[in-house]
Amino acid sequence: METPATRQALAQALLNPRSVAIVGASDNPAKTTGRPQQFLAQAGYTGRAYFINPTRETVQGAKAWASLTALPEVPEHVYVMTGAEAAIDVVGECARLGVQAATILSAGFAEDGEEGRERERRLRAAAAEGRVRLVGPSSLGVVNPRSGVMLTGNAAFGEPDTPQGGIFVASQSGSVIGSLVSRARGRGIGFAGLVSTGGEADLSLGAICEATLDDPGITSYALFLESLRHAEDLASFAAGASRAGKPVAVYKLGRSQEAAALAVSHTGALAGEDSESEAFFAACGFSRISNFESLLEAPALLRRIPARPGRNAPRIGVVTTTGGGAAIMVDQLALRGLSVAGPSSELVARMRQAGADLHESLIADLGLAGARHDIVSAALQLMQDSGEFDAIVFVIGSSARLNPELAVHAIAEHGGHEVPVVAFAVPEAATAAAILNQAGVPAFRTPESCADVVAAAFNRRPASIDNHARFGAGASGTAVVLDELDSAAVLADQGVPLAPATVLALAELEAAESPLELPFDYPVVVKALSDQLPHKSDAGGVVLSVRDAEGVRTTARTIAADVAAHAPDITIDRVLVQPMVDTGIGEALVGYRLSPDVGPVVVLSTGGVLAEVFADSAVRLAPVSRETALEMVREVKGLTPLTGYRGAPAGDVEALAQTIVAVSRLAIDHVEVVEAEVNPVLVREAGKGVVAVDALVRRVPGGE
Amino acid sequence: METPATRQALAQALLNPRSVAIVGASDNPAKTTGRPQQFLAQAGYTGRAYFINPTRETVQGAKAWASLTALPEVPEHVYVMTGAEAAIDVVGECARLGVQAATILSAGFAEDGEEGRERERRLRAAAAEGRVRLVGPSSLGVVNPRSGVMLTGNAAFGEPDTPQGGIFVASQSGSVIGSLVSRARGRGIGFAGLVSTGGEADLSLGAICEATLDDPGITSYALFLESLRHAEDLASFAAGASRAGKPVAVYKLGRSQEAAALAVSHTGALAGEDSESEAFFAACGFSRISNFESLLEAPALLRRIPARPGRNAPRIGVVTTTGGGAAIMVDQLALRGLSVAGPSSELVARMRQAGADLHESLIADLGLAGARHDIVSAALQLMQDSGEFDAIVFVIGSSARLNPELAVHAIAEHGGHEVPVVAFAVPEAATAAAILNQAGVPAFRTPESCADVVAAAFNRRPASIDNHARFGAGASGTAVVLDELDSAAVLADQGVPLAPATVLALAELEAAESPLELPFDYPVVVKALSDQLPHKSDAGGVVLSVRDAEGVRTTARTIAADVAAHAPDITIDRVLVQPMVDTGIGEALVGYRLSPDVGPVVVLSTGGVLAEVFADSAVRLAPVSRETALEMVREVKGLTPLTGYRGAPAGDVEALAQTIVAVSRLAIDHVEVVEAEVNPVLVREAGKGVVAVDALVRRVPGGE
Repeated sequence: METPATRQALAQALLNPRSVAIVGASDNPAKTTGRPQQFLAQAGYTGRAYFINPTRETVQGAKAWASLTALPEVPEHVYVMTGAEAAIDVVGECARLGVQAATILSAGFAEDGEEGRERERRLRAAAAEGRVRLVGPSSLGVVNPRSGVMLTGNAAFGEPDTPQGGIFVASQSGSVIGSLVSRARGRGIGFAGLVSTGGEADLSLGAICEATLDDPGITSYALFLESLRHAEDLASFAAGASRAGKPVAVYKLGRSQEAAALAVSHTGALAGEDSESEAFFAACGFSRISNFESLLEAPALLRRIPARPGRNAPRIGVVTTTGGGAAIMVDQLALRGLSVAGPSSELVARMRQAGADLHESLIADLGLAGARHDIVSAALQLMQDSGEFDAIVFVIGSSARLNPELAVHAIAEHGGHEVPVVAFAVPEAATAAAILNQAGVPAFRTPESCADVVAAAFNRRPASIDNHARFGAGASGTAVVLDELDSAAVLADQGVPLAPATVLALAELEAAESPLELPFDYPVVVKALSDQLPHKSDAGGVVLSVRDAEGVRTTARTIAADVAAHAPDITIDRVLVQPMVDTGIGEALVGYRLSPDVGPVVVLSTGGVLAEVFADSAVRLAPVSRETALEMVREVKGLTPLTGYRGAPAGDVEALAQTIVAVSRLAIDHVEVVEAEVNPVLVREAGKGVVAVDALVRRVPGGE
Repeated sequence: METPATRQALAQALLNPRSVAIVGASDNPAKTTGRPQQFLAQAGYTGRAYFINPTRETVQGAKAWASLTALPEVPEHVYVMTGAEAAIDVVGECARLGVQAATILSAGFAEDGEEGRERERRLRAAAAEGRVRLVGPSSLGVVNPRSGVMLTGNAAFGEPDTPQGGIFVASQSGSVIGSLVSRARGRGIGFAGLVSTGGEADLSLGAICEATLDDPGITSYALFLESLRHAEDLASFAAGASRAGKPVAVYKLGRSQEAAALAVSHTGALAGEDSESEAFFAACGFSRISNFESLLEAPALLRRIPARPGRNAPRIGVVTTTGGGAAIMVDQLALRGLSVAGPSSELVARMRQAGADLHESLIADLGLAGARHDIVSAALQLMQDSGEFDAIVFVIGSSARLNPELAVHAIAEHGGHEVPVVAFAVPEAATAAAILNQAGVPAFRTPESCADVVAAAFNRRPASIDNHARFGAGASGTAVVLDELDSAAVLADQGVPLAPATVLALAELEAAESPLELPFDYPVVVKALSDQLPHKSDAGGVVLSVRDAEGVRTTARTIAADVAAHAPDITIDRVLVQPMVDTGIGEALVGYRLSPDVGPVVVLSTGGVLAEVFADSAVRLAPVSRETALEMVREVKGLTPLTGYRGAPAGDVEALAQTIVAVSRLAIDHVEVVEAEVNPVLVREAGKGVVAVDALVRRVPGGE
């Protein structure tokens, strides 16, 4: 977004246009192209609406205009419902006329092969002739229930009274927006706008959201992503949303996706596409939720719980009128790593004095008799005032459905307290949900969604993404692998502690009769040195425990022969010699790569087969701070022994974290590096440091 | 259950009593004790109902009787709503009169300390004076909507028209049954009965279900378990349900629970309570589901998909009118290990001929235009007839809510096909769910629940549990640990291949001047031999790579001293000497224990810290077959390298499986063994066997 003024003008044209035109409007209200006219009328749109259909005098009783050019004014927002080729012409017309926003339903663009991609280029070119910005193509539309703007052919909006509220939905799937509206109905959840972003040929999902940031009626965002596209725009939006204090919930497909194709090192497989998205969302301060309905239910709670920089375990209280239901909730919370804090003895005593018949337990169980308004109100107030909880989950029994005047109304009165209370009704109870949501008590329909959202809310971090430096700074060209010596030099320069090494040419080794002078003692490791051999162990290119000079000579010969046998087009004429390094008490892999989706990322794992089998790695956008690096160490389960598990000596976690930081700063110091891997990093006892014994760097030419 | 006749009489008294009595009936219909009278009338109960209240002439307009004894007949089923002490008297009265079933709402029994436990003993004794069987105490009641039997004070049943159907619900949580009914309403899901099993002082949940097995109106079971109690009754019910072809879905709390307290070996920690439950349910042929609503939604699909002995990946087809929604479903299925099979080119061609405008893809996307009745019907029929799918998931878009006459009715017509079709509507669409469920198309409200149930259905095995031999056969007494030599003897006897070993007394070692005669070569391992030292490594009781006789002597001395320093009350006077064994290409831990909940179980893991960190183990009820043992090997992720991961040589999985079988058969051959562990089992290359180098057995005295 160029300037606040441009941004505001775009938001106005998108969501609050004073005039709209439907191009390709049908006289038949049952057809997709006939629906917007109906929907606009039904929603009470008070701006001026024009319907373009050159083949008719009227459409559905309104005047049919021959073209945009023929209109008495330039509409602010045009919905293009024609075929693909005609849509290009219409967008050209929009550009010439000075239309500000056009949403394009038409399909047949980038998703449709080379011909479609060419069409999309022409579409963009047509738009570029003016200032018109495009939503779509393949957009199921733009809806603002507050102003009656219903530029959509989605049959789901045929129902009157799209619920109004503070959530702005942006979705890469068009049908999902209608489904979300239907699932929100009658539950006190409403929308300030919904956009189907389609092919994102011009305005990306992030750019659309960013345009709306100044809209005071939008208090939170719910994003549905099929894949991570235009991350730079999302990052820019994230920074703005963070400044504006507007939380963002995101549901993204692809949790199950196989890792991205193997890169030269293993880092690619370990980073994988979804873990990169996860790292990106975390840096954006977005809350990624994993249940579909959570997308609707999350925003209300996210608004109540500020993003936290640290990871102190939140203190979650559970209070209930139904023990069985509350046990489900405790279980679901624990599955997501949240442990429930029982009320203190003192608090239990105070609650009993207030009439609640409860015992000391993890759950504050008020019992059936505790469903009375006065008891619920008093008990909840005491819990909120106690300072013992960061949030309280109220699990309501059958009264939620049949007698909302009991517990539900009492809970609703406490929605404004500084300590948020959320509600899960075990029975079906839409009316209760509506009462609660409207009173500021986020209400959930399933225990899974409730726990999902509570966990997501407490895991949310402040946005930390640097949206300006991050993308597009890398050099271009075909990346090449550096040999271990050159790789080590790049990484040593970053501050990675590497084992000493010396290079010996095979020709010199054979010629020299004198004893080898090495700058370290035997035994040593001898490795093939080549920029053609990233997986040198597999090719017989690494030999351990060589004990003397003669051994080095014969080993070097053997290595050259073995590599030649393994890969006939690679000639080994140099070897790298290193001292044998104590294996320490643990091993780690520190990787780095320039992701095409999210820019530079740093990866930590244990390396080896099991790290892959368990998908056990920590991924962050690079560069990272020491604190983040330490958090990564704690996150990799396979590194648990480093932290002194079960009384064993702890490893030098601090030194490992420094190495992670050093590697991650390639993002700043060496933008030409597209991939790097230090594997293994041997971790010694606390205070004794770490040492890397192998390194690999891949970079594009031109950097140094 | 003693005989089919007893069983049928009990089922009759529980669910279809010709006469009932409410003891403690209130005149106030708003009170819990006043509700059953209302509910019975509202549900149109046609049997004879009596209301006992000695302090009144009438209750709610009906005659109030002074006692059960005063009634003109002996009621078949009595609901006891008095206080705890009075309830004991009433049960005594029931026994004397010949009442067949009594359900007890009263609380204050086993959950209430020693006094409560004593009360429960008296309750059972009172019942034992007659043939009366008890549901409860703390039972929220027994409901049979088919016969209008509403013996419950649960306010949730105040709504008329409890939906009727084939599901029988048994729940350890009373409030859950009402919540399930409310969530089933309007969705075409109904019940043949619901029981709150309460404290299970007499009839356990399993026994109640077993009693109902001959009821032809009950086609499936949904169990809500807070914990695994009376597993022997559940096993007996499971065997019967399997014979009757009635599937069982179970939701059990405690997935998140910390593993049971550490046992002597690590096996206890690895088996844990929940993994034992999981193994038990699998052996029962139950389908454990993990979403709460799945409990309602699972039975319809389980009825359509028979339990399968093997693990062939099911071929799941996904067809849709909304690409975005279908992508959610593919993702959710993949997260649960189910991969979606796209239609073949040939099938796509046939579907296109039938009017469906789809492309070759993982998803058969009929598009918006494909929501037409004729296209959906033709496309679905072609998929069902193709032989390419074991089940088909239809993801329906907005038409599910607004135009069920389009896709929904077409799908409903295909519910009877041999290849089951299930439906997930992306929008809120209760009416569609009702139409579909009634037509035999299981309909789901969330994508998570849909994928959960599809996965559970295809993972279901035939019941394999041996309900007679399994429980109570173990000897009793305080268990003792055997030393490694005796432990090895027990396990060698089972057929576990153990490394050779010889025992040396310290006194003889010191005395003998002559060279030691060992039955194997040096180097050797020297270990402390004691039945007091199960974790001998931690006490300095294991020394590797001892190279000669003198080394054995000094090592034995050192071990004795180190152990004495570590544990002053343990004297080491013997050591065990073994040859050093090649480490092979992988290590496993095979454990066995007699679980107090589910009887003997066998456990496989990699052993070591990471197995615990990742909770990476496979647990089965013991004994197991070779096939099951092989399945366990595949299930432990950390053993992936044994199967030849990434071209590395495979391990002798067959020999490992034989070892698992051998250990598991302790359940038959050594019922006095309460715990055993073989750790590590070193696995060599395929064909070269495995060898166990350490063993531990704990058993109760008296066995041999």
